Amino acid sequence: MPSKKVNIDRVFHALGDPTRRAIVEKLSEGPISVSRLAMPLAVTLAAVVQHLHVLEASGLVRTEKAGRVRTCRIDPAGLTVAEQWIGDQRSAWERRFDRLGDLLAGPDEK
Amino acid sequence: MPSKKVNIDRVFHALGDPTRRAIVEKLSEGPISVSRLAMPLAVTLAAVVQHLHVLEASGLVRTEKAGRVRTCRIDPAGLTVAEQWIGDQRSAWERRFDRLGDLLAGPDEK
Repeated sequence: MPSKKVNIDRVFHALGDPTRRAIVEKLSEGPISVSRLAMPLAVTLAAVVQHLHVLEASGLVRTEKAGRVRTCRIDPAGLTVAEQWIGDQRSAWERRFDRLGDLLAGPDEK
Repeated sequence: MPSKKVNIDRVFHALGDPTRRAIVEKLSEGPISVSRLAMPLAVTLAAVVQHLHVLEASGLVRTEKAGRVRTCRIDPAGLTVAEQWIGDQRSAWERRFDRLGDLLAGPDEK
């Protein structure tokens, strides 16, 4: 079930930043708290929280607070939207080459 | 052969704009001149040229001038880099679920 909030502009914009991609890469391995997520990244906790807001708003990441710990996890909806758009371009592009191939092969080959 | 100039930050940044995605969508159907590319887009020719610079710098599009006509075409390198990165995240994410499945199934099922 894709999140309602997924916006393809925001998904691609969010992925254009190396720290945000590092966050998505880490979360692809499993959910983790904000503080543990921030540890290996060469940025402040405040910067990580800011990046998480951008990732959440785009539909790439979800966060959830339980007691004093905020846990982050991948929201597959965001990546799926980006993957589908790229796949659509590849399909259009491959169909064009198939048609060119048919044309070059000539009527005898059809 | 991937272009040397492909930069994943720039690829995702470039795709975060709806006009640039519309350009990539159009070029996925085949090469076209800059002026014909601009026609259906609700932006000026100058804006299209600017967007093409961003797309070229990211490795998503190539342009080539023959006489007075500049022709634009998809550079598959840019989309491939984005597709691979997203695919890597999906693989990591699916591996995690496989491990969780094994754990839930218990030792008898292994």
